[in-house]
Amino acid sequence: MDNLVGEFLGTAVLIIFGGGVCATVCLKGSKGENSGWIVITAGWGFAVMLGVFAATSLGAPQGDLNPAVTLAKLLKGGIYTFDQALITMVVQLLGGILGGIIVWLAYLPHWGITEDQATKLGVFCTAPAVRSYWKNFLCEFIATFMLVFMIFAIFNANNGHFPAGVGPYIVGVLIWALGLSLGGPTGYAMNPARDLGPRIAHFILPIEGKGGSDWAYSWVPVFGPLAGGFVAYVIAKAVGII
Amino acid sequence: MDNLVGEFLGTAVLIIFGGGVCATVCLKGSKGENSGWIVITAGWGFAVMLGVFAATSLGAPQGDLNPAVTLAKLLKGGIYTFDQALITMVVQLLGGILGGIIVWLAYLPHWGITEDQATKLGVFCTAPAVRSYWKNFLCEFIATFMLVFMIFAIFNANNGHFPAGVGPYIVGVLIWALGLSLGGPTGYAMNPARDLGPRIAHFILPIEGKGGSDWAYSWVPVFGPLAGGFVAYVIAKAVGII
Amino acid sequence: MDNLVGEFLGTAVLIIFGGGVCATVCLKGSKGENSGWIVITAGWGFAVMLGVFAATSLGAPQGDLNPAVTLAKLLKGGIYTFDQALITMVVQLLGGILGGIIVWLAYLPHWGITEDQATKLGVFCTAPAVRSYWKNFLCEFIATFMLVFMIFAIFNANNGHFPAGVGPYIVGVLIWALGLSLGGPTGYAMNPARDLGPRIAHFILPIEGKGGSDWAYSWVPVFGPLAGGFVAYVIAKAVGII
Amino acid sequence: MDNLVGEFLGTAVLIIFGGGVCATVCLKGSKGENSGWIVITAGWGFAVMLGVFAATSLGAPQGDLNPAVTLAKLLKGGIYTFDQALITMVVQLLGGILGGIIVWLAYLPHWGITEDQATKLGVFCTAPAVRSYWKNFLCEFIATFMLVFMIFAIFNANNGHFPAGVGPYIVGVLIWALGLSLGGPTGYAMNPARDLGPRIAHFILPIEGKGGSDWAYSWVPVFGPLAGGFVAYVIAKAVGII
Repeated sequence: MDNLVGEFLGTAVLIIFGGGVCATVCLKGSKGENSGWIVITAGWGFAVMLGVFAATSLGAPQGDLNPAVTLAKLLKGGIYTFDQALITMVVQLLGGILGGIIVWLAYLPHWGITEDQATKLGVFCTAPAVRSYWKNFLCEFIATFMLVFMIFAIFNANNGHFPAGVGPYIVGVLIWALGLSLGGPTGYAMNPARDLGPRIAHFILPIEGKGGSDWAYSWVPVFGPLAGGFVAYVIAKAVGII
Repeated sequence: MDNLVGEFLGTAVLIIFGGGVCATVCLKGSKGENSGWIVITAGWGFAVMLGVFAATSLGAPQGDLNPAVTLAKLLKGGIYTFDQALITMVVQLLGGILGGIIVWLAYLPHWGITEDQATKLGVFCTAPAVRSYWKNFLCEFIATFMLVFMIFAIFNANNGHFPAGVGPYIVGVLIWALGLSLGGPTGYAMNPARDLGPRIAHFILPIEGKGGSDWAYSWVPVFGPLAGGFVAYVIAKAVGII
Repeated sequence: MDNLVGEFLGTAVLIIFGGGVCATVCLKGSKGENSGWIVITAGWGFAVMLGVFAATSLGAPQGDLNPAVTLAKLLKGGIYTFDQALITMVVQLLGGILGGIIVWLAYLPHWGITEDQATKLGVFCTAPAVRSYWKNFLCEFIATFMLVFMIFAIFNANNGHFPAGVGPYIVGVLIWALGLSLGGPTGYAMNPARDLGPRIAHFILPIEGKGGSDWAYSWVPVFGPLAGGFVAYVIAKAVGII
Repeated sequence: MDNLVGEFLGTAVLIIFGGGVCATVCLKGSKGENSGWIVITAGWGFAVMLGVFAATSLGAPQGDLNPAVTLAKLLKGGIYTFDQALITMVVQLLGGILGGIIVWLAYLPHWGITEDQATKLGVFCTAPAVRSYWKNFLCEFIATFMLVFMIFAIFNANNGHFPAGVGPYIVGVLIWALGLSLGGPTGYAMNPARDLGPRIAHFILPIEGKGGSDWAYSWVPVFGPLAGGFVAYVIAKAVGII
């Protein structure tokens, strides 16, 4: 139960900071408007670090915050049963919805003055730079593969036992790096809960002048990451780092 | 007594670096003029880290530097008596005033050549991007809630005992993240002493061509943070991380 | 054998993140287009950190990922035989090719819409700002000298035994610093595998509208770094840090 | 003797990275041209971290790299005799000259194409944004006071014994912060060796199309920092952190 609370609130923290930084950069009138990719990527990196701290403090020692990571750990074995993994993924998604709602509240004066509907949607979920579903899927697949493979690599016993605080920070830097390097084509969802949760929030919230929630694209940042996590498990197992 | 000296000088250090980075980015002719949100947010993050180091070195083990944090710790119990908390808050405010004075001195040639009065005030205290007191209050409430909740989460025993130096650094990254993600609407005061102290300094200093100190807004970055810190205590207690 | 797998995949990880960040900043339509030098340099710094984590997790305790570093360690003695060093350099090169291929796949929709051929080549390998082979050689020599000398300095016993995770992070910051400070004239290859590997990938891949692979320059980022690594060994030995 | 070699080469490393980042941002045609204050300040922060690692690896356990810091430690007592402090300051200055020469070599193709003479000088030493000697002195005094006071504060026993690698990194972040927050008016020399050493290099080197070395200003970044270091010692002693 502690694990579910931790994954729920940890994912909410992740989205409050992650959706928040998108709002800072993209919404009209924000003091950080147009502050660029370094802000977006640092913001998401720290968001994951803080989400992990929140989850672990609440008794969720894995701090996955991401169904693609949970899937890979389920396959790895010894952490989750199938039922536990499934319910963990569901609460991650619910946490993503809660996070999206809080970002909406924090930026309340800015929705009405931001005219572009795609910009508003972009605070909640990803959209591709060039729409081409299978190429976008490939990008999300590669980025999430790198995410999950590198988590296994970083916390491999060969790298020693990290002192308190260092592990979540390094994970934050990993996410920062993924955004810097592989975020250009699709906005690096790499996480079904991160994308679908806030997309649902966008769909249900009374956001001033909002447009559609782009459901046509919504499967890409769900199944691309799940496929990437699955293959990362397979390769990590094959090369012996898990 | 050591605690009061530490909170006083630590908050002064916080404002020297925090107000300083606003001066760097905003004042005319500064070598860092218009260097953007990443500079502002990194500067404030490091400012808090350095303020904490200063406070703890002086014998103030909490290194709160923030009445909203002190309030939450008073409610938590076992650290402050009511009187201690109150006097701690007062010296934090005085430290904020001292910090504002030193920023004014460091940037002495730049006040006269900066024409915009709101820009000059912005070195000392926050102003909302879109003025709407209750929405601004809500944003300060959310940001400070996240600040205090995350401090409790990060230093929860589940996350282990941080090696020397790591704790203040992670707190600095937390502040950096809060600016990146939740700073857009109000400039993320999150701290009554950080906002009111330098605002008083602006009011009393003979700054060249200064305008008013915007007292009409001044209650928002005092009571929004105090409310956020209070509710963060309530929720942190309810979910068991304190 | 583990060492070779680690150096191979570690170098691939290095190029996935390093080539990736060049694609993010340079390719048309990328969400991080034109996001500047701080993005490029942070991206490459983290790329090396992640490559090191990957290599060490796979059983390659050196995590060189760079023939210039391997050469210096061969000369230092006690780590590689000549044959081991040579085959290590070959697999580093192969890893660089693999990394380049994966960057091409991740950014698939962006090659066709990026018109400039030099820009596309720049995702894979370096080119000088001002073409002047011996001055470019000198810059690569100095940058790689600093890289290898500082690796010896950082991990000198006088600096103590780093806790888990801290060493790769500091190496990442070293690379970040090298890019910030010495990357302006040649794009800081500092590593024959980093430059030649992806250049070969560029040569063999069916990249839309690609131009030549600039073989005329290709010797500079191979022999400049090797010379820099050699002299770094000589000086480090002379001053006694190895 | 080891101490002198360490302070000499450590200061050279400091200037190679610090002068280098100024060259990256300011010289015509550099790949990092106009990349802004975040690049400058991160570059100088990492420069100090790397200089400290170099110095300590060479057997200079203080890693001061700065006469203002050495002065404050001489006054503190127990580390330097007067003669040792003086010769330490001299080798720091010589290291600064060497560093300036290496930056000139690394950026060889860029001096001729950079027309502005002040820009070229700015790679080597600081100049005020608004020339007003005593106000500039005051800014250098405040910035160096904060530098030295914070070094004493950070390494105060109350903050515990830092694990290997963490101390130099935190010092780097301190320098980064000083640049972000107090660098706007004078370019934050904060160090006589950092400013005078490379200024001498500029004076003696055959830099294409160079102008004067601005000796009229050169006393400010020497005596401002020394005064700041002196007063930091006095205050640190008075408040008991040394």
